[in-house]
Amino acid sequence: MPKISIKGASMPQSPVRKLVPFAEEAKKRGTKVLHLNIGQPDIKTPEVAVNAVKNFDIKVLEYTHSAGFESYREGLCGYYKEFDIDISKDDIIVTTGGSEAITFALGSIMDETDEVIIPEPFYANYNGFATANGVNIVPIESSIDTGFALPPIAEFEKKISEKTKAIMICNPGNPTGYLYSEEELNQLKEMVIKHDLFLIADEVYREFTYDGEEPISILNIKDLEEHAIVIDSVSKRYSMCGARIGAIVSKNKEVMSTAMKFAQARLSPPTYAQIASEAALKTPKSYFDEVKVEYVQRRNTLVNKLNSIDGVKVPMPKGAFYCVAELPIDDSDIFAQWILEEFEFNGTTVMVSPATGFYSTPGLGKNQVRIAYVLKEEDLIEAAVVIEAALKVYPGRV
Amino acid sequence: MPKISIKGASMPQSPVRKLVPFAEEAKKRGTKVLHLNIGQPDIKTPEVAVNAVKNFDIKVLEYTHSAGFESYREGLCGYYKEFDIDISKDDIIVTTGGSEAITFALGSIMDETDEVIIPEPFYANYNGFATANGVNIVPIESSIDTGFALPPIAEFEKKISEKTKAIMICNPGNPTGYLYSEEELNQLKEMVIKHDLFLIADEVYREFTYDGEEPISILNIKDLEEHAIVIDSVSKRYSMCGARIGAIVSKNKEVMSTAMKFAQARLSPPTYAQIASEAALKTPKSYFDEVKVEYVQRRNTLVNKLNSIDGVKVPMPKGAFYCVAELPIDDSDIFAQWILEEFEFNGTTVMVSPATGFYSTPGLGKNQVRIAYVLKEEDLIEAAVVIEAALKVYPGRV
Repeated sequence: MPKISIKGASMPQSPVRKLVPFAEEAKKRGTKVLHLNIGQPDIKTPEVAVNAVKNFDIKVLEYTHSAGFESYREGLCGYYKEFDIDISKDDIIVTTGGSEAITFALGSIMDETDEVIIPEPFYANYNGFATANGVNIVPIESSIDTGFALPPIAEFEKKISEKTKAIMICNPGNPTGYLYSEEELNQLKEMVIKHDLFLIADEVYREFTYDGEEPISILNIKDLEEHAIVIDSVSKRYSMCGARIGAIVSKNKEVMSTAMKFAQARLSPPTYAQIASEAALKTPKSYFDEVKVEYVQRRNTLVNKLNSIDGVKVPMPKGAFYCVAELPIDDSDIFAQWILEEFEFNGTTVMVSPATGFYSTPGLGKNQVRIAYVLKEEDLIEAAVVIEAALKVYPGRV
Repeated sequence: MPKISIKGASMPQSPVRKLVPFAEEAKKRGTKVLHLNIGQPDIKTPEVAVNAVKNFDIKVLEYTHSAGFESYREGLCGYYKEFDIDISKDDIIVTTGGSEAITFALGSIMDETDEVIIPEPFYANYNGFATANGVNIVPIESSIDTGFALPPIAEFEKKISEKTKAIMICNPGNPTGYLYSEEELNQLKEMVIKHDLFLIADEVYREFTYDGEEPISILNIKDLEEHAIVIDSVSKRYSMCGARIGAIVSKNKEVMSTAMKFAQARLSPPTYAQIASEAALKTPKSYFDEVKVEYVQRRNTLVNKLNSIDGVKVPMPKGAFYCVAELPIDDSDIFAQWILEEFEFNGTTVMVSPATGFYSTPGLGKNQVRIAYVLKEEDLIEAAVVIEAALKVYPGRV
């Protein structure tokens, strides 16, 4: 029988995938499972986007330009302008989700065995994209004690080698909720210029910053034009994860013309989803204001409640809709399975993401879980109550 | 300034991309350009698909299952059943176009520098997917004199090495229009079993076979279950190229569980397009009958007219909607540019695809062009008239 590839065999699985059967079993037993593990918001997609698709008359559902509708890219320039980001439509390639933008970025700037340095914990699927593209992630640990602030630049410089092609950040961060400061971004800037590296920033949570904090895009940083590559997506912004529309944005012409060759090979991003995404640009500001109020309330409720539990520590996230919680447990993978398999409180249990999946250094994250606050407040309160009760009886409590 | 990757620099460009500015210049001069270069049919998308999207009420446009809607995959089983292909929903992963299915297939079974043998001429974007995945295409020339029939198995066996992981075919063929016979497919079967290789078949033109010929899927061939990987797509079938929905189909469980890890990393295929694709399964048979009648008429008109031109040779395609025409020219790249840049007949010229882009052996295809018969009959007649007139005055005529 012919064999699969070494690459295929080493493709990582989602950190929660192995928990799915246990969640299903729990549901079969009649236990209510609160899903704190997902990044799928429950927020309504803007009507302007949904209606645009409903009202669009299509005779032939054609390929679009490989870089996406020209009108959509022009519209995106206006969107970025509101964040004081000055780019042209030729600096944008519309992609099939942020996922494809990452693949295009890695493919355009990295060869097999090249290295990208990423502060950990980081979005688990970066591992999959790295493996699929044959490149290596070099992690640098950020600490829960600083709220997952940027690790010292000296730590990065220790890891920079001939193979290093880029530094990658997620800002605001999934899973940390950390928002990099202007000072931190300037430190990164000096480092990438000094070592002639690219800086890739996954900024898909740009809209989700709290407590008056403003996100700073790497596209906004002077003298970084040739180094900066932004990964973007409509998935979280407009709660339309299913659209599968993202973008790669850079003023580096060589990067963009290279990414364009990858884009042309796959023909075009999905047409219906582009219609929705272009229309979503007209989403009223009040939509985001309401969403933000909702997330802040959820965040405050959840994080404060968790921090009140004995032995639990959660830095207050400044952005996105996740937090990383340190728990008094031996092993987050075992805990996450146990709470589904063997625990319930008032007929309810929770599904959390073991943080081990967000670290690439083996052994890290064993006493941490990621919790997404994409459920309504009362569910989050109930979830925290379940976790509190669980920690009292969990056999692996430390 | 940081540098792009060697991989990125070596990504091939579409064979017609460099012609686009010349077509635009021609249009600016007021010349009508008939596009024979594209694979975008002018056929209407089935109303049942378009209406399903219009009538679908979405509150939150969510991620779907990474393998696609379960209901869609179940529906696809019914679709395949009509071709006597007996598969289950777990043998299918819905992808973002056939393009992504190719990437998943290559990634799941091939490592860097591994080889896939493909009869040439072949769909030009296979080159891009191979480069992006770091694998090598080993071409075997098929001849216009046999209508691009399968080259002798001995030719394949000469090229099989330790690095060879798969044979790949497109059936019916783009750009050749050739339809492999049962005998040819059985020869391939014996070879892949003997050498323990995968057989990848791009069968996206399954519906487009003419003159009473029936397509044979490799999924239909006994004892090939562990070897066969099918690439599929709704793009041509329902004239919905812009949906970006395809599928990878295989009964090899290890291949599918590996492909699933690639699928999970990119989260899910586009939701709207899956709604359209699932509804398209209800397209009435009369739709395909009408489309077939239309294509046969176009094909006969075009191919007969081209064959009547002095020095032109076109095998009659048995499927798909392309033909490869041998022309009395020195260099198809120069000819294709010249006819846009310097020629017109009654205010009209044509854009064709130089066949060089469909060969990977340097030098092949110089006296051939690919013509897609996706335009209405009168345009195809006019195009043939333009080509006839052009060949009379083309400076590089041989």
